Amino acid sequence: MNKNFNQVGRSVPRKDGPLKVKGEAIYTGDMVLPRMAYGRIKRSTYAHAIIKKIDYSKALELPGVLAVITGEEAPNKWGIVPQTANEVALAVGKVRFWGEGVAAVAAIDEETAEEALELIEVEYEPLPVLLDPKESIGRASEVRIHEDASDNILHAGEQLFGDPDKAFAECAYILEKEFQTSYVNHAFLEPHTSLASYDTQSGQLQVWSSTQVPHYLHRQLSIVLEMPMNKIRVTLPAIGGGFGGKGEASSADFCAALLSRKIGRPVKVTYERNEVFATNKGRHPCYMKMKIGLDKDGYIQAVDFNNTLDGGAYAGWGIVVMFYTASMIHLPYKVPNARARVRRVYTNKPTCGAMRGLGGVQPRFAMECMLDELAEMMGVSPYELKMKNAVESGYRSVSNLHVPHCEYKKCLQTAVEKSGYLDKHGKLPFGKGIGLSGGYYISGTAYTLYQAYKPHTTVLIRVDTEGGVTVHCAAADIGQGCNTVMAQMAAEALGVHYEDVHVVSGDTELGTFDLGSFASRVTYASGAAIKEAAAEINQKLKEVAAGMVGCRADQLEIKDRRFYSKFEPRKAIEWEKVVEAYTNAVGTLTGIGHFSPPRLKGIDLTRGVRVQGANIGHSPTFGFSCQIIEVDVDIDTGRVRVVKVTEAGDCGQAVNPMSVEGQVEGSILFGMGQALYEEMKVDPQGKLINPSLHDYKLPTAMELPEIDSTIVDSYDPTAPFGVKESGEGPIQPTIPAIANAVYDAIGVRFTDLPITPEKVLKALKQKKVN
Amino acid sequence: MNKNFNQVGRSVPRKDGPLKVKGEAIYTGDMVLPRMAYGRIKRSTYAHAIIKKIDYSKALELPGVLAVITGEEAPNKWGIVPQTANEVALAVGKVRFWGEGVAAVAAIDEETAEEALELIEVEYEPLPVLLDPKESIGRASEVRIHEDASDNILHAGEQLFGDPDKAFAECAYILEKEFQTSYVNHAFLEPHTSLASYDTQSGQLQVWSSTQVPHYLHRQLSIVLEMPMNKIRVTLPAIGGGFGGKGEASSADFCAALLSRKIGRPVKVTYERNEVFATNKGRHPCYMKMKIGLDKDGYIQAVDFNNTLDGGAYAGWGIVVMFYTASMIHLPYKVPNARARVRRVYTNKPTCGAMRGLGGVQPRFAMECMLDELAEMMGVSPYELKMKNAVESGYRSVSNLHVPHCEYKKCLQTAVEKSGYLDKHGKLPFGKGIGLSGGYYISGTAYTLYQAYKPHTTVLIRVDTEGGVTVHCAAADIGQGCNTVMAQMAAEALGVHYEDVHVVSGDTELGTFDLGSFASRVTYASGAAIKEAAAEINQKLKEVAAGMVGCRADQLEIKDRRFYSKFEPRKAIEWEKVVEAYTNAVGTLTGIGHFSPPRLKGIDLTRGVRVQGANIGHSPTFGFSCQIIEVDVDIDTGRVRVVKVTEAGDCGQAVNPMSVEGQVEGSILFGMGQALYEEMKVDPQGKLINPSLHDYKLPTAMELPEIDSTIVDSYDPTAPFGVKESGEGPIQPTIPAIANAVYDAIGVRFTDLPITPEKVLKALKQKKVN
Repeated sequence: MNKNFNQVGRSVPRKDGPLKVKGEAIYTGDMVLPRMAYGRIKRSTYAHAIIKKIDYSKALELPGVLAVITGEEAPNKWGIVPQTANEVALAVGKVRFWGEGVAAVAAIDEETAEEALELIEVEYEPLPVLLDPKESIGRASEVRIHEDASDNILHAGEQLFGDPDKAFAECAYILEKEFQTSYVNHAFLEPHTSLASYDTQSGQLQVWSSTQVPHYLHRQLSIVLEMPMNKIRVTLPAIGGGFGGKGEASSADFCAALLSRKIGRPVKVTYERNEVFATNKGRHPCYMKMKIGLDKDGYIQAVDFNNTLDGGAYAGWGIVVMFYTASMIHLPYKVPNARARVRRVYTNKPTCGAMRGLGGVQPRFAMECMLDELAEMMGVSPYELKMKNAVESGYRSVSNLHVPHCEYKKCLQTAVEKSGYLDKHGKLPFGKGIGLSGGYYISGTAYTLYQAYKPHTTVLIRVDTEGGVTVHCAAADIGQGCNTVMAQMAAEALGVHYEDVHVVSGDTELGTFDLGSFASRVTYASGAAIKEAAAEINQKLKEVAAGMVGCRADQLEIKDRRFYSKFEPRKAIEWEKVVEAYTNAVGTLTGIGHFSPPRLKGIDLTRGVRVQGANIGHSPTFGFSCQIIEVDVDIDTGRVRVVKVTEAGDCGQAVNPMSVEGQVEGSILFGMGQALYEEMKVDPQGKLINPSLHDYKLPTAMELPEIDSTIVDSYDPTAPFGVKESGEGPIQPTIPAIANAVYDAIGVRFTDLPITPEKVLKALKQKKVN
Repeated sequence: MNKNFNQVGRSVPRKDGPLKVKGEAIYTGDMVLPRMAYGRIKRSTYAHAIIKKIDYSKALELPGVLAVITGEEAPNKWGIVPQTANEVALAVGKVRFWGEGVAAVAAIDEETAEEALELIEVEYEPLPVLLDPKESIGRASEVRIHEDASDNILHAGEQLFGDPDKAFAECAYILEKEFQTSYVNHAFLEPHTSLASYDTQSGQLQVWSSTQVPHYLHRQLSIVLEMPMNKIRVTLPAIGGGFGGKGEASSADFCAALLSRKIGRPVKVTYERNEVFATNKGRHPCYMKMKIGLDKDGYIQAVDFNNTLDGGAYAGWGIVVMFYTASMIHLPYKVPNARARVRRVYTNKPTCGAMRGLGGVQPRFAMECMLDELAEMMGVSPYELKMKNAVESGYRSVSNLHVPHCEYKKCLQTAVEKSGYLDKHGKLPFGKGIGLSGGYYISGTAYTLYQAYKPHTTVLIRVDTEGGVTVHCAAADIGQGCNTVMAQMAAEALGVHYEDVHVVSGDTELGTFDLGSFASRVTYASGAAIKEAAAEINQKLKEVAAGMVGCRADQLEIKDRRFYSKFEPRKAIEWEKVVEAYTNAVGTLTGIGHFSPPRLKGIDLTRGVRVQGANIGHSPTFGFSCQIIEVDVDIDTGRVRVVKVTEAGDCGQAVNPMSVEGQVEGSILFGMGQALYEEMKVDPQGKLINPSLHDYKLPTAMELPEIDSTIVDSYDPTAPFGVKESGEGPIQPTIPAIANAVYDAIGVRFTDLPITPEKVLKALKQKKVN
């Protein structure tokens, strides 16, 4: 079903695209304010150590140095999850990872600030360094990373639904395997940058930051700087990508703000690339054990999942990621009985956090590879097995995830048909392979990390006397194109044209609020609020238009900038004339809309979720996709080349199909990176050995495979404009599809990432030996 | 009567004060954007000429020049009064004053732009130059400044109320005199500056400008650039004064925007001081004839007023100023019969426009001097005569100006008592004198220049989860301190503290609207909107607080951040707790308020006002004041020194008494300038001969007299928080009080301004001769 849309569904070019391509977009790093100073952060040279003393007297003597701060000056803990917040602006008393900030300098230029860092003397007392989560747990009695975590575990939780033990006992096919994923970074192009300007008289602080979560940052600044929220304004210039890595505040934000407040001048802090790596917040390495049981007909009866997440030094988004990995096993297949045991462990490495497809990528890798193997055990095609178990519209998981709408089967069918999977799988020459994987993701969250933040989204639409439309929303366009999509939805809801709509966003000092750009929530949540705001305006205008057209207000329709009677369509009047009449007669024309997801009972983030009727992975709806990937494995070098990706996705109604296509392509490259190339590595002291885009291997345009993506016909009737997520789901199938294709090519099932040429060569050698 | 206020009535320091004093405030001129270019305007060297040809090819060849524009590229006419709009961004076809812009350049730096101006060749065909309004009318058949003004008159109007001819016939005392005022400039410290940044992709234009009227500028930019309003954003950095001179757009705004659109880079145009003078928009020189008739008891029976305004080259605010001079004769004295004939004449000089006390200063000078003279004719004190005729609360003028509240008599009494006027007047030694004058001014306007702009003001108040208050209003704090005053009013209305309130203003992209900072309207209009917005929030909170306190919502009072039952005051709860409960339970806490003045029927700005029940000077309320000024006249040099000013003002409830005091002191210096020093002079070709702060004589701190000002006890029960105007009224009495004091000192009545040493010496010499 597809509504008869005019503006939604158009592949309009992104409003910000050409500016960025031409280098004309203004990022925080481009900004220069009068009297602006430059901030730099002194970083620890130990991964775990007591800070005995920091002497910055010599730094202060350097001409051009304006101030030095240390963690003692702002010891309040911050964190995206208030219950587990344990980060500080700069280390206090102790460092927990190599590269942690211990002091910050403001100086008249970057060179002076850099030079001043060298003059800061820090005396450390080294502590044993724990780099592996199992070792970290094992040595917890001897070495403790956080005082309040006696076992070096941030949190451990269990979710039990149904009776998996009983179910396994009755299964015909059982497979149990271990999987391991790598330590990867978002590698967004624009490093963290924050420019803060504190007004010493009024006590107002203005921060321009490269962030996905302006309103969360607003809140965190308030906590760390001990300032009322209404004294702080956070504004977003152009943002060069986030992928979750800007889904929290950064030390750059706090140091810029603290230094600016100290010296009464604007201060800008821009990370070097090695600082982006040093402070990471990328994907959690997971040590997973998964057990899946099928009945004799191939229906999944039970899943048992055990996951140890290597969290690095601080909490960050950790507890959320941890529980998401547990929740994510419940879709896109029907799982009647399930147990998940998850724990997130502290280690002396840069913290792991949120990253595109948060919590889904790791268990998906395990589950989709195992289903591939189970299909082989059963002697059926993986496609057949997955189709058989695939969920459909109206499905409610045993963990109470409700799926109002689902075209997952259509995704599987489409990708299989377009790729010729059934003709190729198991039939290609040695070294060539094809793999299939499904995936899904949430379209928002059911709860907010700060309970008081309700609604999740507010949108204000203003129509000026000429009929120009301005949409005020608080979401963050971090490059994903949400401003473009919002303009389309507002135009659709008002019956005007996309070109008439101007979107203002990313500013905490607008009257509107939004949680931020994460969890693939923006299109759905803003869409709902836009619909409500537009309905208010439409109602106001219809009351005026009725008299002008000569019919009842409830008989009017609006389309293409015209009001007309639905019974006598020739009775019509131009939208502009109605707007003019309204503003002349009544005045300012605005509408306000909100979105709050239905409240879930029984959620307690710190205790996990044990109650029926609640699930941490809850979302108003879900997007689904399937990818079929063809690879060439070079037998001599072990290099895996992705040749072609056939993708079919159910993102509900695509508001901007071209944007969806871009999201799919970006997701695939992202997944390829983790599958084949990317891994942050540390030496035995915990120092990153590849913190540069030279040494950290990203897929580039050279690695781009042929991508054939299809947006399957879909419309979620419960969603605003029928929309669902599209930016995080498509990364889920990429890794397992590659792994399954590699198996198809060379008969080796890889269970740890990345699948490097070394590992492939080694496996081929072993295979030969055996 | 004075309400029991906590926040209103406090002399809190201005939020912006210290920053400005310390040089830390950021003005438009301080801003630098990446890739920013600099714009300069080529100005005409004729006061009246046909532009035969503009050749800028050589300028374009100069390395570093990015673009040149001429008037042909943006010929749409703009003007603050749409019905008389006749200005263009740059002259098209003809120049009408010396210094009018004919072309503009954008270059990589200011020096290059300046150099490029010299390379632009303009060929003129000179026309006769009309510098005097009477000559302009007389030679209209031969020389026409605007094609559509065949008599070189922008507009002429007549207002007739009662039967003045009949009344004069019955008067016991009649005085008829002529007066003339000078051509003066606002001389604000910050010159016009505009920074425009056009985004070539999205077609969005952002303008930072030093303006009093961001929303009008927004509209004018839309007209001149032919862009939809929602593609334009106007934002105000710190503003260094306006005094009416930034109450319209300027060529700087249009040229910056046009150049930026042309080159796709930000462009900043900052005027030199001589350009501020060249483009003026200051006070209209007036050629006035006034006739006043009193009955035998000294009651005014009739006033006949004839005023020819020298308007300069374009319309600007002219028609408004013209009708205001007609309206202003109806207060602060009871005038039962009146006729005003006014006409505003074009001349080949920089345009006159709005300036502090617009339309009031000139007729006030005439009337207060004449009443002084009439008192002498009757043998009574001017004080006695003015008290006798003074209006009181509830007065409605024959022209239908309604005065809901008036403490003018209290002003007269207070100033007379504190100055010892009655003991000094007529009794000081030759060369020393004391003069008295009254005055009044409007507190807003009853109409808007764009009918569709309704309401006149919108305010949105947001309370965050911590109880921080943010007031979104659209007014322009141009240095008069309105943001401070709004914070006080919002705090008062919400029962919180001034320090808790943060005001956001001066941005057309907020959801709120405001006409601008002129006509002493902001405190009244915003105050009304703030009250309404706060009432919405209070109501929402009371409903929650009622359950917490244990009483009915309508029994609750709010004060000092506490809700309490008015019947059992010990039943109370902290405001923050109620806010927290509300935001937890309901969500975002906002309130919206509006202000629209009562609609007047029968106003037609282009035809004048002939109907009863309407008056162009209408305002919801009026402020009043009296000044008694003591002068020393140096008999040898003719120099008049103002020794002491005793002022008493009725501004209703002073929201911030310290700010009112500042406004009074500023007004007095402003008035002294026009009374004694200031005059823009042109040579016979129409070229300004003193366009610099060196040659144009402003009063400085050296001329500052002793000022004893009193805010008389006053509270307008019809006004929000009891407020009335305070920033434009106190300039009204200064000039006539000085003139009356000079008469008291040396027996000479000066009727033309400024009262220079030359004129005084000449008069003393004549006096000796006679």
